[in-house]
Amino acid sequence: MKAALLSIGDELLLGETVDTNAAVIAGRLYGVGVAVRRQLTVGDDEEAIAEALDSLAAEHQLVIATGGLGPTDDDVTARAAAQASGRRLVLHEEALARLQDFFARRGREMHPANERQCLLPARVTLVPNPTGTASGFQLLHRDCLLIFLPGVPGEMVRMLEETVLPLVLARRDESRVVRTRQLTLFGVSEAEIGARLTGLTVARPGLGVAYCVDYPLVQVRLRGEGDGSEAVQRLLDGAAAEVRERLGEHIVAEDGESIDLAVARLFREKRVSLALAESCTGGLIAKRITDVAGSSAYFLLGAVTYANGAKVRLLDVPEELLAAKGAVSAEVAMAMAKGARRLAGSDLALAVTGIAGPEGGDAVKPVGTVFIALADRAGCTSKEYRFSGSRDQIRTVTAVTALDWLRRRLLTL
Amino acid sequence: MKAALLSIGDELLLGETVDTNAAVIAGRLYGVGVAVRRQLTVGDDEEAIAEALDSLAAEHQLVIATGGLGPTDDDVTARAAAQASGRRLVLHEEALARLQDFFARRGREMHPANERQCLLPARVTLVPNPTGTASGFQLLHRDCLLIFLPGVPGEMVRMLEETVLPLVLARRDESRVVRTRQLTLFGVSEAEIGARLTGLTVARPGLGVAYCVDYPLVQVRLRGEGDGSEAVQRLLDGAAAEVRERLGEHIVAEDGESIDLAVARLFREKRVSLALAESCTGGLIAKRITDVAGSSAYFLLGAVTYANGAKVRLLDVPEELLAAKGAVSAEVAMAMAKGARRLAGSDLALAVTGIAGPEGGDAVKPVGTVFIALADRAGCTSKEYRFSGSRDQIRTVTAVTALDWLRRRLLTL
Repeated sequence: MKAALLSIGDELLLGETVDTNAAVIAGRLYGVGVAVRRQLTVGDDEEAIAEALDSLAAEHQLVIATGGLGPTDDDVTARAAAQASGRRLVLHEEALARLQDFFARRGREMHPANERQCLLPARVTLVPNPTGTASGFQLLHRDCLLIFLPGVPGEMVRMLEETVLPLVLARRDESRVVRTRQLTLFGVSEAEIGARLTGLTVARPGLGVAYCVDYPLVQVRLRGEGDGSEAVQRLLDGAAAEVRERLGEHIVAEDGESIDLAVARLFREKRVSLALAESCTGGLIAKRITDVAGSSAYFLLGAVTYANGAKVRLLDVPEELLAAKGAVSAEVAMAMAKGARRLAGSDLALAVTGIAGPEGGDAVKPVGTVFIALADRAGCTSKEYRFSGSRDQIRTVTAVTALDWLRRRLLTL
Repeated sequence: MKAALLSIGDELLLGETVDTNAAVIAGRLYGVGVAVRRQLTVGDDEEAIAEALDSLAAEHQLVIATGGLGPTDDDVTARAAAQASGRRLVLHEEALARLQDFFARRGREMHPANERQCLLPARVTLVPNPTGTASGFQLLHRDCLLIFLPGVPGEMVRMLEETVLPLVLARRDESRVVRTRQLTLFGVSEAEIGARLTGLTVARPGLGVAYCVDYPLVQVRLRGEGDGSEAVQRLLDGAAAEVRERLGEHIVAEDGESIDLAVARLFREKRVSLALAESCTGGLIAKRITDVAGSSAYFLLGAVTYANGAKVRLLDVPEELLAAKGAVSAEVAMAMAKGARRLAGSDLALAVTGIAGPEGGDAVKPVGTVFIALADRAGCTSKEYRFSGSRDQIRTVTAVTALDWLRRRLLTL
């Protein structure tokens, strides 16, 4: 089944609203084995919408349109649908009854402007909207099923799940199955990954591979298509095993689990507690750790010691050490980690100190110089890094590197 | 100038990635007076991209395409551009020299696969990419300017600002002037803002007003269009003054300055130092403070005291107080703020403690209960909030509320 999406709204073309509906619908359709071939956005313009509907209907078997079903003058999708399909616009009695009921249940008076939302092309079938005033509807045009949903994300999603997906499932070609698998890699470039995975699809018909950079991570996305879910499962299992074989040391998470969630899961599984001491990341690592609900079970404290005085007072970093080695040094990173561990009484303590820039670098320690240290009961290790990029990039890659240190250490426990 | 956008990538049509690039580019083009007429998304498919380029070029004077310029096999945008414009694919010497330089500056070996990113249609002009390996480029086809940018948002935005917008400004109709002005509001709903600004455009021909929610902030965007920049400037000055008159107490930043940057500017201007003590925000406020380069001049330290023991050990919060009042209380928030100020020796210290959820709430202190406290030489004040939404939303609105506390306090100094 060839599918297309049409997003309608001036706010999308003015850049005032990010179109999340398209991604949500595409993802759900993909989940039931229907791949979207193209997605188009037009403004609140009757001619433009009608033309888009007609041309998309000519090349696809399913078109889902969102937006332009509200009660105000700039909502013209129903009129455009009537024009594109050569139908009259009529007052839809069932839609009107539903809308009156919608207001009655809420004990509210229906505004006359809302009746406009029941003017639909003749002979359409309703797509019920349990949570809003806009009536969804569907019609056949040029052998293409055109489905119209409101642009309000919450209303749209519920109508998609309750009515549209069952409808699509009933119409699609049953025999084809599509599944995906995702692996998240760190510490290796997209170019290198592509090179190491050369030939992965050879002798694996139905397998597709795509790469997506989410700096500093790279996602490898495997897509399997075939007859029957078992065969597709085997295809993806084989391909994922091959990726692990070729790039295993760089895989930090699989199947939608982020590195943050993988680290959180390991902390829970291993029953180990954590303290952090951050200089150049300024709280970013603590923020990412505590983004995960339930992190209070293992995260005891974080010290954001931006000033040297704070390193001395909070973490007992010796002043002489700071004077002799500088705040950005392996020795200070280790003193910070040990100090944080002592202060928190935690199993592990991780510390970072570095120069995120754009100022503060010199020839010996340029911008991007970062030391990471990890202390545990047995002692403390540290390593120097030279990262590049903007302040934001250096802070982000430092945080991900720190999370990967924790992940690797937790795996050994 | 009629403009269109083309987004390229299987991940967009599979719903794995939300297309934020389209909104960013549309918004920036609108800011220089160019309205996008349509936006199209296609997958990583050479034929589909070439066909889309050709048909968009026939109906527009400007097409900006993003995505598909990476080093791997699924990146086929340059090949499609060559096909659509009837050109050969050639190794672009300048692009190659730039790329070699890119790797040399970072002290890294260039992977052979990256050379593929310099295979571009013949006779194109480069759009330099200072932060990544993908070469942007532009070419004329059917009297339409086609511009190709990578899909990585950070790289794309920088190229858009440094090269594309000046290029567009030089080509568009010179006589009409379009300027925008932006005011950022906090603590007031979009509906309330709309009601209070009723009639703003009356008697102000050429003025447009749009609203954009960037939770928990709302941006009011004024757009002035007219003949001559002085007249447009006056129009916008008058409208902005009216917005300040009607909603002044809620304006936290103007003209692209975020609330984070406004706070940073005030700290520098007032020469005041800061310490933070965070519980439920877990480092998020420190992260936002240190996102700004130069924050080490005023930010001394942050204590992320997630566990009760950390509050006691780091901030000298009395154990009896924690037992009597609970960690989420006005008394503990004030003890945290005073403790952080004492520890850092700072002028100001801000503390937050609360329940971000989804677990941990009860009838008396439901999820979303947050206490903020601010200590200075004269004493300490605190306030209780009841925020709603997801864990992420509660943490974000808490951080913005805290930044707004700092902003208001600094303005009184």
